[in-house]
Amino acid sequence: MPPLRIGLIGFGYWGPNLARNFHALPGCTLAAICDANPERLAKARDLYQSAALVQDVDALLANDSDAGVIDAIAIATPARSHYPLTKAALHAGKHVLVEKPLAMTVTEARELVDLAAAVGRTLMVGHVFEYNPAVRHIKTLLDEGAIGRPYYLYSTRVNLGRVQSDINALWSIAPHDISIALFLFGQMPVSVSARGARYLNGEVEDVIFLTLDFPDGLLAHVHASWLDPSKMRRMTLVGSEKMIIYDDLAVEGKVKVYDKGVIRLTDPQYGEYQYRLHAGDIAIPKLPLLEPLRLECEDFVAAIQRGAAPLADGHSGLRVVQVLEAAQQSLRSGGQPVAIA
Amino acid sequence: MPPLRIGLIGFGYWGPNLARNFHALPGCTLAAICDANPERLAKARDLYQSAALVQDVDALLANDSDAGVIDAIAIATPARSHYPLTKAALHAGKHVLVEKPLAMTVTEARELVDLAAAVGRTLMVGHVFEYNPAVRHIKTLLDEGAIGRPYYLYSTRVNLGRVQSDINALWSIAPHDISIALFLFGQMPVSVSARGARYLNGEVEDVIFLTLDFPDGLLAHVHASWLDPSKMRRMTLVGSEKMIIYDDLAVEGKVKVYDKGVIRLTDPQYGEYQYRLHAGDIAIPKLPLLEPLRLECEDFVAAIQRGAAPLADGHSGLRVVQVLEAAQQSLRSGGQPVAIA
Amino acid sequence: MPPLRIGLIGFGYWGPNLARNFHALPGCTLAAICDANPERLAKARDLYQSAALVQDVDALLANDSDAGVIDAIAIATPARSHYPLTKAALHAGKHVLVEKPLAMTVTEARELVDLAAAVGRTLMVGHVFEYNPAVRHIKTLLDEGAIGRPYYLYSTRVNLGRVQSDINALWSIAPHDISIALFLFGQMPVSVSARGARYLNGEVEDVIFLTLDFPDGLLAHVHASWLDPSKMRRMTLVGSEKMIIYDDLAVEGKVKVYDKGVIRLTDPQYGEYQYRLHAGDIAIPKLPLLEPLRLECEDFVAAIQRGAAPLADGHSGLRVVQVLEAAQQSLRSGGQPVAIA
Amino acid sequence: MPPLRIGLIGFGYWGPNLARNFHALPGCTLAAICDANPERLAKARDLYQSAALVQDVDALLANDSDAGVIDAIAIATPARSHYPLTKAALHAGKHVLVEKPLAMTVTEARELVDLAAAVGRTLMVGHVFEYNPAVRHIKTLLDEGAIGRPYYLYSTRVNLGRVQSDINALWSIAPHDISIALFLFGQMPVSVSARGARYLNGEVEDVIFLTLDFPDGLLAHVHASWLDPSKMRRMTLVGSEKMIIYDDLAVEGKVKVYDKGVIRLTDPQYGEYQYRLHAGDIAIPKLPLLEPLRLECEDFVAAIQRGAAPLADGHSGLRVVQVLEAAQQSLRSGGQPVAIA
Repeated sequence: MPPLRIGLIGFGYWGPNLARNFHALPGCTLAAICDANPERLAKARDLYQSAALVQDVDALLANDSDAGVIDAIAIATPARSHYPLTKAALHAGKHVLVEKPLAMTVTEARELVDLAAAVGRTLMVGHVFEYNPAVRHIKTLLDEGAIGRPYYLYSTRVNLGRVQSDINALWSIAPHDISIALFLFGQMPVSVSARGARYLNGEVEDVIFLTLDFPDGLLAHVHASWLDPSKMRRMTLVGSEKMIIYDDLAVEGKVKVYDKGVIRLTDPQYGEYQYRLHAGDIAIPKLPLLEPLRLECEDFVAAIQRGAAPLADGHSGLRVVQVLEAAQQSLRSGGQPVAIA
Repeated sequence: MPPLRIGLIGFGYWGPNLARNFHALPGCTLAAICDANPERLAKARDLYQSAALVQDVDALLANDSDAGVIDAIAIATPARSHYPLTKAALHAGKHVLVEKPLAMTVTEARELVDLAAAVGRTLMVGHVFEYNPAVRHIKTLLDEGAIGRPYYLYSTRVNLGRVQSDINALWSIAPHDISIALFLFGQMPVSVSARGARYLNGEVEDVIFLTLDFPDGLLAHVHASWLDPSKMRRMTLVGSEKMIIYDDLAVEGKVKVYDKGVIRLTDPQYGEYQYRLHAGDIAIPKLPLLEPLRLECEDFVAAIQRGAAPLADGHSGLRVVQVLEAAQQSLRSGGQPVAIA
Repeated sequence: MPPLRIGLIGFGYWGPNLARNFHALPGCTLAAICDANPERLAKARDLYQSAALVQDVDALLANDSDAGVIDAIAIATPARSHYPLTKAALHAGKHVLVEKPLAMTVTEARELVDLAAAVGRTLMVGHVFEYNPAVRHIKTLLDEGAIGRPYYLYSTRVNLGRVQSDINALWSIAPHDISIALFLFGQMPVSVSARGARYLNGEVEDVIFLTLDFPDGLLAHVHASWLDPSKMRRMTLVGSEKMIIYDDLAVEGKVKVYDKGVIRLTDPQYGEYQYRLHAGDIAIPKLPLLEPLRLECEDFVAAIQRGAAPLADGHSGLRVVQVLEAAQQSLRSGGQPVAIA
Repeated sequence: MPPLRIGLIGFGYWGPNLARNFHALPGCTLAAICDANPERLAKARDLYQSAALVQDVDALLANDSDAGVIDAIAIATPARSHYPLTKAALHAGKHVLVEKPLAMTVTEARELVDLAAAVGRTLMVGHVFEYNPAVRHIKTLLDEGAIGRPYYLYSTRVNLGRVQSDINALWSIAPHDISIALFLFGQMPVSVSARGARYLNGEVEDVIFLTLDFPDGLLAHVHASWLDPSKMRRMTLVGSEKMIIYDDLAVEGKVKVYDKGVIRLTDPQYGEYQYRLHAGDIAIPKLPLLEPLRLECEDFVAAIQRGAAPLADGHSGLRVVQVLEAAQQSLRSGGQPVAIA
């Protein structure tokens, strides 16, 4: 099978990471880097002499650029352009890996999923944390029943930086946590509520608090912000038998599994000590030292090659957009819970 | 002035801390320790031989116990008994320091405030964090304008333990954060919303997410839980000029003041880099090594002696109950924002 | 068996901890607290009304104080008084628990060990870390062979405070680490070397670096100081199969067991990659929440009652003094290794 | 001035970092990458298409390779080859930046310094920490007198990895700490002592404890090892007025300046409380986000261009080798202090 010829659109913040991985990945060729900004193209030229540098997206998609024939497109552009670019790429018969969010509305996201099916092309969304070895490890523990019944998770993803002007922290940051929650719990939330605040400009929320309600009281709470003194990427999962802290920034021990829980006693004294706390060992599993984005890129190439769906396929992207759209509606209404169809 | 004769009601979890402080404090005498539970009284006897041990609250309040005449009562009993005990003590002409929350309803709390005024006695609520040197330091920085315009704060107060059966984590844990937020911002929220979940029994919430909305977008978010793998007591205050992290469990540097912020630029490039991040020094102020509870007890005694209101007076207690009641209503409605009168 | 009547000599820095434990321990009575300083006796009176307060050591030892007959003596006085007080107490027929170091010379220490044997009394030294659950856990792992061959350990015990004028940091702080090293390795070092420096006064070393050489290359290195910006009590044990970090100040996970090591490969490439690093899981064992000093006091009482030697007996105290004396000699010679007989 | 044409010898562990920096630096051209290992050259080809790839050092130095004329050589090869390669490069009239240590003996190091002077070429050693903004900041504080009289520093530089077979941890790791100590204190030690142990093979020490004695009791202690469970790069500097911790791995606050000290009181009580501890604020200065190696490479190019000595010149390299040679002698003698000429 000849190597898959990949064209990357967008060489700003995230695009260079995709370029680096596709450049190094067997089974594919980084055939083109496309960006309207000449400064960025100049940077790309320094790093990847073998890739064609393209300013015109249409030419790239029409196989009419210096890159020649392109099989697949990776899109790392601002969020609002994901839908039109993905649509155009699918129409041009390309497989597409598009950064999250897949689109800005459920209608658009569903249209892309349907279009990909209609044209028989792979559509994948860059939910990179679904490929993260830490998240995968937690998923395995959950599926094995090792933590008992999952009660809830909460996630804090804050930092100073990557301030956006066109989309808020919900659409910019929280898709990571939403995709993790959906992946870990293996189901959709019943309803969503969100609160936020706009401090830097009056247009987009810099700070978001988001709650996803799943069936049976299962819950995920997300705090996302680009206006914080300290970088934090930390998720806690509380189960009936064990509890897990996943700190993505920890140098040693990103995942800690606590043999901790509360046992209800049958014989209360004075109506007060009805519970016994259990606190045992803490285990820090060795995780494979694999770059999540590398695994994501591999899955994209493999999915195309074998004609099967990747893990983070269009349906996964659609589900995250469903949650985002409902959350945005809740945000506008001041935090009213919004049901998910 | 003869020393104030203090009677402590409740020698369970928190009462011993009050006993220790009143025992050591000049200007007062720990005259009585009152608890219905004989085991607890036995413990009290070991520690405080000079205090009368009393099982009957009525006798204590009637000055009819071994302790004789009592001037002031400190109440450290389960939350639901705060109202009736405080009411009885005020009716008996005692000054009262009662643990938070002051009462379980606004009506009751207001009645107690009015009653204290009517009988001319000091009513104080154990909002111990208002006496915490870290919180006081942050308050000073805020009032001096050192952090610029305050944007929002968020607080995480979680742990494994102190599971309650009769009140939820909102009423048990969050009063600390509410009293801190009201103290720091010096105003009442306009509305409150709360979400929670009941995992250990079906009756009370183990986990609470609470949002207080103040005027002009100012916001406080609280996460309180007794069902967590890791103890955390951490509050972040984000301002336009500086940002503060207050970690009550930090061994070194409970308060960190970050010279950090985001500056909006007038001349955006490509519509993307409209902001410039500023990150300067971090300052860790030396805080006085004073036990907050000691300062609280001192304020109680001093307020009685000079006939002035303590910092955490009945009105302060009432305000916290107003927030709690609104939050409880929001909780019942699934998170709908509830306005505060 | 009637409760053992214990007399405590010294109520300064450490004495109150011994008082608290003996007061609470079944099988013994804190019969007397003896200190020449009246302010300290006043503090003792506040806390322990049932103990006789004695200023005259001779009267105490002669059973001629308010305390009457005393069976055992606990000594928590400055180091230079350990020898004369222990000698006098043994001569008076008392069992003795004396704080480390047992004496200031090997000759004196050996005399005390012999004297205890001659009078048939229990002699114990306050090597409290031998009773520490973390140290006990590491000892068990070592003895089970779980870490493979032990290579070496190093310990950092520094702080700002407890500055001494009469003894240096070697005799004041390092006995802890020496007793731990001897306990863990179960043998005596062959030789000792020490370096130090005197900054605060010209007389005693504030900073000590100490190396204990055991047979077969096994080594223990100790850094002890009371002149440091940050409190640290951290010991690392490196073995051929596993490695352990014991951080006594860690809030969560005082002991971490690393499944880490270096494997020598038989087939080097280019003479460079002869080794393969192995890094697996990290385990944080749950340790019993027992106060080491409580366990030490229990062992003292139990040893007297059953007529057997305690874990940290006089011989253990002597061994630590042997190392200290050799280290002191090395210190004087500028760091020359000094053999241990 | 035409750009300086630089040839890099050695593309193993460190060489790629030099290549990346010289490639990006104005004023010079990465003209050649030389390595005997074809796999490494293949990697270099992927990254730097504009550099000539050379296997034969002699050809490179003779300007007889594909690279043509070379002005300066950067050497990142195993330590034992530093001397012969540097000598050959200087003889060929090249400026030389060689990784630490400059040579394996003082005789050789001095010969190189003299040779560089004789041929009028710049000789520089890769003491990269002298260019580290954290170290520079501490140096400034020291020179300004901000920490008072410096008492001592100690450094821990341990990790699991980079196990060497041909040189020990003294020559492989400790040069960093030695160069920092000499740089900060601005003088040579009077004598040196070192202890170490060989665990992985019988030939080279995996673990080193090193003490440098400067005049007036000033001291530097270094612990270096490649056999440790946890990566640590931490240096503490204790002064009479302030103390500094420099943790090179800290995410937030690599340098912490503690307003801490011990004040001797004139009026002791009971001969015990002669000292008063002072502990004030902690300051975490904002350090410039500059890569130390970039600054080092800039200094090399600038020194050549302006004909002046770089900061880490040959004399600096020689001083470090003097300390290393004395330390090695001490190591062989079991830790006897060795005077430095």
